[in-house]
Amino acid sequence: MTTLSGLTEQIYSDRDIMGLFSGPGTIRRMLAVEAALARAQAHCGVIPDHAARSIHDVCHAEDIDAILDLEAIATASMLAGNIAIPFVKQLTAAVRRVDPEAARFVHWGATSQDVLDTALVLQLQQVAAQLDQDLDAAQRACARLTAAHRDTIMVGRTWLQHALPTTFGVKTAGWLEALARAQRRLRHDAEQAALLQFGGAAGTLASLGDAAPAIAGALAKELGLALPNMPWHAHRDRLADMAATLGVLTGTLGKIARDVSLMAQTEIAELAEPSGPGRGGSSTMPHKRNPVSSAAILAAATRVPPLVSTMLSAMVQEHERALGGWQAEWDVLPQICALTGGALRHMVGMLDGLEVHAANMARNVDATNGLILAEAYALALGARIGRMEAHELIEQASQEAVRRNCSLKAGVREALAKHEATRDLLGDHDLDRLGDPANYLGEAQSICDRVLASWAGSSS
Amino acid sequence: MTTLSGLTEQIYSDRDIMGLFSGPGTIRRMLAVEAALARAQAHCGVIPDHAARSIHDVCHAEDIDAILDLEAIATASMLAGNIAIPFVKQLTAAVRRVDPEAARFVHWGATSQDVLDTALVLQLQQVAAQLDQDLDAAQRACARLTAAHRDTIMVGRTWLQHALPTTFGVKTAGWLEALARAQRRLRHDAEQAALLQFGGAAGTLASLGDAAPAIAGALAKELGLALPNMPWHAHRDRLADMAATLGVLTGTLGKIARDVSLMAQTEIAELAEPSGPGRGGSSTMPHKRNPVSSAAILAAATRVPPLVSTMLSAMVQEHERALGGWQAEWDVLPQICALTGGALRHMVGMLDGLEVHAANMARNVDATNGLILAEAYALALGARIGRMEAHELIEQASQEAVRRNCSLKAGVREALAKHEATRDLLGDHDLDRLGDPANYLGEAQSICDRVLASWAGSSS
Amino acid sequence: MTTLSGLTEQIYSDRDIMGLFSGPGTIRRMLAVEAALARAQAHCGVIPDHAARSIHDVCHAEDIDAILDLEAIATASMLAGNIAIPFVKQLTAAVRRVDPEAARFVHWGATSQDVLDTALVLQLQQVAAQLDQDLDAAQRACARLTAAHRDTIMVGRTWLQHALPTTFGVKTAGWLEALARAQRRLRHDAEQAALLQFGGAAGTLASLGDAAPAIAGALAKELGLALPNMPWHAHRDRLADMAATLGVLTGTLGKIARDVSLMAQTEIAELAEPSGPGRGGSSTMPHKRNPVSSAAILAAATRVPPLVSTMLSAMVQEHERALGGWQAEWDVLPQICALTGGALRHMVGMLDGLEVHAANMARNVDATNGLILAEAYALALGARIGRMEAHELIEQASQEAVRRNCSLKAGVREALAKHEATRDLLGDHDLDRLGDPANYLGEAQSICDRVLASWAGSSS
Amino acid sequence: MTTLSGLTEQIYSDRDIMGLFSGPGTIRRMLAVEAALARAQAHCGVIPDHAARSIHDVCHAEDIDAILDLEAIATASMLAGNIAIPFVKQLTAAVRRVDPEAARFVHWGATSQDVLDTALVLQLQQVAAQLDQDLDAAQRACARLTAAHRDTIMVGRTWLQHALPTTFGVKTAGWLEALARAQRRLRHDAEQAALLQFGGAAGTLASLGDAAPAIAGALAKELGLALPNMPWHAHRDRLADMAATLGVLTGTLGKIARDVSLMAQTEIAELAEPSGPGRGGSSTMPHKRNPVSSAAILAAATRVPPLVSTMLSAMVQEHERALGGWQAEWDVLPQICALTGGALRHMVGMLDGLEVHAANMARNVDATNGLILAEAYALALGARIGRMEAHELIEQASQEAVRRNCSLKAGVREALAKHEATRDLLGDHDLDRLGDPANYLGEAQSICDRVLASWAGSSS
Repeated sequence: MTTLSGLTEQIYSDRDIMGLFSGPGTIRRMLAVEAALARAQAHCGVIPDHAARSIHDVCHAEDIDAILDLEAIATASMLAGNIAIPFVKQLTAAVRRVDPEAARFVHWGATSQDVLDTALVLQLQQVAAQLDQDLDAAQRACARLTAAHRDTIMVGRTWLQHALPTTFGVKTAGWLEALARAQRRLRHDAEQAALLQFGGAAGTLASLGDAAPAIAGALAKELGLALPNMPWHAHRDRLADMAATLGVLTGTLGKIARDVSLMAQTEIAELAEPSGPGRGGSSTMPHKRNPVSSAAILAAATRVPPLVSTMLSAMVQEHERALGGWQAEWDVLPQICALTGGALRHMVGMLDGLEVHAANMARNVDATNGLILAEAYALALGARIGRMEAHELIEQASQEAVRRNCSLKAGVREALAKHEATRDLLGDHDLDRLGDPANYLGEAQSICDRVLASWAGSSS
Repeated sequence: MTTLSGLTEQIYSDRDIMGLFSGPGTIRRMLAVEAALARAQAHCGVIPDHAARSIHDVCHAEDIDAILDLEAIATASMLAGNIAIPFVKQLTAAVRRVDPEAARFVHWGATSQDVLDTALVLQLQQVAAQLDQDLDAAQRACARLTAAHRDTIMVGRTWLQHALPTTFGVKTAGWLEALARAQRRLRHDAEQAALLQFGGAAGTLASLGDAAPAIAGALAKELGLALPNMPWHAHRDRLADMAATLGVLTGTLGKIARDVSLMAQTEIAELAEPSGPGRGGSSTMPHKRNPVSSAAILAAATRVPPLVSTMLSAMVQEHERALGGWQAEWDVLPQICALTGGALRHMVGMLDGLEVHAANMARNVDATNGLILAEAYALALGARIGRMEAHELIEQASQEAVRRNCSLKAGVREALAKHEATRDLLGDHDLDRLGDPANYLGEAQSICDRVLASWAGSSS
Repeated sequence: MTTLSGLTEQIYSDRDIMGLFSGPGTIRRMLAVEAALARAQAHCGVIPDHAARSIHDVCHAEDIDAILDLEAIATASMLAGNIAIPFVKQLTAAVRRVDPEAARFVHWGATSQDVLDTALVLQLQQVAAQLDQDLDAAQRACARLTAAHRDTIMVGRTWLQHALPTTFGVKTAGWLEALARAQRRLRHDAEQAALLQFGGAAGTLASLGDAAPAIAGALAKELGLALPNMPWHAHRDRLADMAATLGVLTGTLGKIARDVSLMAQTEIAELAEPSGPGRGGSSTMPHKRNPVSSAAILAAATRVPPLVSTMLSAMVQEHERALGGWQAEWDVLPQICALTGGALRHMVGMLDGLEVHAANMARNVDATNGLILAEAYALALGARIGRMEAHELIEQASQEAVRRNCSLKAGVREALAKHEATRDLLGDHDLDRLGDPANYLGEAQSICDRVLASWAGSSS
Repeated sequence: MTTLSGLTEQIYSDRDIMGLFSGPGTIRRMLAVEAALARAQAHCGVIPDHAARSIHDVCHAEDIDAILDLEAIATASMLAGNIAIPFVKQLTAAVRRVDPEAARFVHWGATSQDVLDTALVLQLQQVAAQLDQDLDAAQRACARLTAAHRDTIMVGRTWLQHALPTTFGVKTAGWLEALARAQRRLRHDAEQAALLQFGGAAGTLASLGDAAPAIAGALAKELGLALPNMPWHAHRDRLADMAATLGVLTGTLGKIARDVSLMAQTEIAELAEPSGPGRGGSSTMPHKRNPVSSAAILAAATRVPPLVSTMLSAMVQEHERALGGWQAEWDVLPQICALTGGALRHMVGMLDGLEVHAANMARNVDATNGLILAEAYALALGARIGRMEAHELIEQASQEAVRRNCSLKAGVREALAKHEATRDLLGDHDLDRLGDPANYLGEAQSICDRVLASWAGSSS
């Protein structure tokens, strides 16, 4: 079957999720829905038991290609407007071949969207389960890094400039908490979306008469899904919400990948992605090790937000079934799932094998000759001469130290010495203490402890 | 102060929320944060009580313009990179004018983003409270409509084509449930986002030394916000999540507005937006009544999704404070709030005064000479001759009825009569019964009852 | 090969373009680039002629699968970060099998992105050529409709409300001109993007020494592409511009599809999409004819804009080759092409077989009992008593006519009669003339004539 | 007037463009359109000369507030659905106050959208002119940098890793060419969009009778705009195209800002944004110099693409005037203009004062002990032993050099010495030559020359 971008999409998209939403993957779940419908209707006495059995057996055939011609379904769907119509036709024919009477009861009372949406719900549950496991793994990796690097001093950076010292554990603690929040959101949304779609042609199940509620209940039970008060053919908020939650997760993954890739820059060299044969090499530069997982994750973080926008725009659906909005979702939600899943897989692999170069972190802290501790000096002074004045004095001392290529400590010493009023404010001991980054970590280590304790508590 | 699109944005945006996020609105909340910080630090014995009192008094001045020059803040912020830096300078000067000693302690230990983010959090809580009330009002209107029109038969439409009869109550029940879900999501997200931001220059609160945890706790308490395990300067998932939830809400509002505007088309005329002096008139066509609220809501539903995309893209923030991503949020999240709030206000007004033309609904059900009941005939026949065969027979009868401009009932009667096998399948009584839309409403009324009961249960 | 959404994407995406960007489609063009590179280098005397011949022969093998293992390329690319690296490895091995010496010269001096981008450029030229043909066809259909319906009176609608009479030809003339503009933009952008990418590892072609300019020139000539002043590895504006142009085209297609689908609503019934076996049927409602082409086009118009946003966001690329931004383009630009191409194919099919129901257009003009001519009355009066006063008088007469269910003509007659000052302003003859929509078409027919003349002039 | 985000939007948005699209700015241009309409109609003998003069005089009043109440227009527009309706009412009243007879002819024959769109077109022409000038300035700055740094060796970076040496001039040459392309696109699009909108209530100008074409022609001439074949009320492709062109420009600005901000990182220190009082300081860290212009530009590059998406989505407009789509444009296109303009202003300022630290560029080239020249070695070897083999040998030598912290030259020497076959392939002289980055700049300097010559040619 001709498909788009068969090669490159595999760099970023999760293969299992791609399989789940592939032609065969989707058809499998549509078959499961049709089988469950037949069983539910037999259970309610609306169709004969033998018919349900025949439908069930065909739907659970080992080899889909033996019962359906997917290429033909694709072609027919261009005219039909959705894949369910030719699918039901082919399925009916397949059932007829083994049990002509049963063929009457295929898809009984359902509409195309019932089958397509319920199959989608089943797929999303599987996506959520896989992401949940991968989120566990990513959090475990972050927790390990946080514990290991609680005290590993590194540069805290704001606006891509050195700000203050912090520890690498604080950074990974931030990643950990964000991933834990993403997991909670995803579990919540997945549960909200575990919902039967069953309304018939216009949402009233009129075709099933009085048996409708019983069949709907039995069908939901068969599929392990909740039964909503009413169908949701044109109310897509739960799907959009789940898409948005995946978008937020991808944003968090992108934030982590951005951090990693910046720290892996040749001049910074604080982190490196895992190495291995075939990984991140260049076709022309033998020394290179490209951060390929970061690239994949950042590409996903670029692609998913506009796809979430599509899901939100597509919510404006007409009446009882949309013209355009529903159809726009069909490939977009699977792409969101596959890109998010792929980014998460890359993240787990990257975090598990992340190389941490603590020595380079220390080197970079020292790179500015003490400027990174300017605030420490400013505050120590501020307690004596006021915040604004101290700020200005240290700002000048910093610029002077840069100009003369000396340490900030020396610069501050001289600046203080210039004026009588400031001459004796800080002694040598003070200056030494203020000049050691380990003395200006503030809450860094406590943050690591708090976050790990909180995570251990919630995930146990 | 020069501002963008001062006129047109008011058509769509909620004025209260615009005020909340206006220059003065934002500065007010920044002042509240600085005042609370001073109080918290005095409470912890870190700054003198009198200094905290002076700071508090200045921050709560009746007239902001007496203490700050907002135009100058705006101008200076272009160079400073954010409004907090010139704001703190001006505030310090203002405090100095009344209490020179206290001026030392303004903004003590905090960073620009602490103040900006915490002020934003306070604004978002107010947005959430206002939207919650408006969502209550919108749901009440939908509940009233659902109860009133439980039995009002109208056309159910799919793909913008007549499908089956339903009732108007089913439609409004769908709106009601979607709005209730939006409210639950918003409450949840607002609670998650009611969080202090307080980390100092790089998130370690190093400048506050050992007093840091106590001050953070006291500050959170002062502001009625939760205290997170660590600052979230570069982890914006909670904000993005709330933005997305507003996006989903706007999508639901857009869906309702699309329904209303389609039903208000001149030829359909089933609904009309409320009328009144100055409302929806045309500058050239005296007879027109434009659905202006629908237009405003649909415009919001077009504009908000890409803004949510921005919030998600902006999550990829560097290190401990971002370069570009954080800054991108500043006007975008307020716009999302104002557009969503404006759309919701329009929705409440529109639903409260909605004109329902039940007679036109009935007229439209009859517009196709019974074709809308084709499924009813098909199913009745299907029980006898199989679904696919019945479907084809009715499809042909439908086409024949259209061609001859007769009723479907007549068409079916003739089609059945053509072949011996089908001749006696449906008698006149059957045909009459099948031809009455009131007999083919399925679960419509039950849905209304279920939804109203469920809503009454959850909102009582 | 496992791929995403193999079924549903075919409803909307153009199959030829999907094939062009499929795994084999892309690899074919990469092979063409490598072959051309070898020929260019032989031409410049940099590699032996026989080596170029061997490389050429392998690259133009009938059966790609005989020389390359695409599945293995996909798998390896997950680690390598792009498909070119494993591709070059496999290609080198394939050349080595037939000519070990030639293998040394495969991909000589080029970087992965040179091959990937130049292959993409070749694909885009093919896309542009196909779209150009389809745009011709769509314009011809619109021109036919404009000529045929220059005088077919129908309702002009604003805000989804009746405004004034117009003719169907004016509507299709608007479509025609918009399609012609889209074609001009696309031709321009495609020409701008017909550009060699060739810079080596960091854009300096250092690896080719002094021969670099000659090779670059020869390679461009081999491929029929222009030679830019410098490589554009991280400057993607031409691609983004072309993506945006496709986005604008899709917007125009969406506008047309929206018009068609609204006019095809059951109650309006002015247009119908072409019918045919398997086209637009419903799985449950035999009478339905869903506007499936409109749905496909509207879905594309929902999906493409956010994809264009991705292309624009992805432009922020780091240094000489991006981390994330370039990679984000890989599947997005093909999707934009395939969706636009698919929407255009649907459009051509829809326009070619469009059913126009002029009688229903006339019926709808009369549906409001003359209200649609309110402006005509207002202007005729305005010339006598001023615009605002006339507007108000007719507004009241309109409301009165609605209330009493009489014609606007009658309403106006009575309103005028009420006051002495207005009594004799319009006589019966005036009222009759003003009440005929054919007398109030303004420029409608002239517009059709102008547009057709202009189109004939430019396309001849 | 209450407006959104009055403070922060000024950090990013251009103030002149904000003024242009502010309430008064927009109203000014609407007045200019009304005045021109009156003059055109007088010219065509349709309204009295004195009336046109009176209307003209009122419309060109020095003080808008003397004739109009903008706050009241804003309020009324919420009900009216657009600002033109209350505007025309107020304008008519203002004219009536000075010339009661003339008041009849205000806005004669026009519709709200005619005035709003034509005013917008006038604004866009002014935006384009301003951007054109700023693009000139930005290009001049890039040309200066390119000439000055044609030979300034620096690291070429791909995937955020060192790749090969290049010169800073190559980088700025790339910026220069991209800006020149943006300017060409903008000029083209601005010309395409310099178009009168004039169609009356439904696009037929029926209200003007036979005089319509003459008036339209005269009006276009009065305003210096082209006269299209027909109105374009619901065909927004030209506006969307211009928005996209601004989006592409912003993408290029974002690419440059990303480069600058990465090169300005504390550890890299190759560039610094201009410094000055109040610029880029931190509220807590006196030593910091934040790249505030880069941040503003990157924020714009994050915000504009989704806004372009809105413009594209909004193109799907219903019939002769849209419900939602047109309205969505109102604040979005101005925002795109103001953000793009603001980013460009920041860019000009940043480039004009950019600090280039050539010594640090050289230092960074040496940072990897020669690894950056790996390709040079690999190619020199490749010519002797084949590309793949040489690549592998150098890859291993690179890894070995890193492990032992020696130079690549030494590593290569040893690696070659290991095997008899390679022992004598490169002598000491070769190794020295290969180890000097100045010998491996390829086309770098030629690129600078070509680009400057080409730019001088096109801009002279």
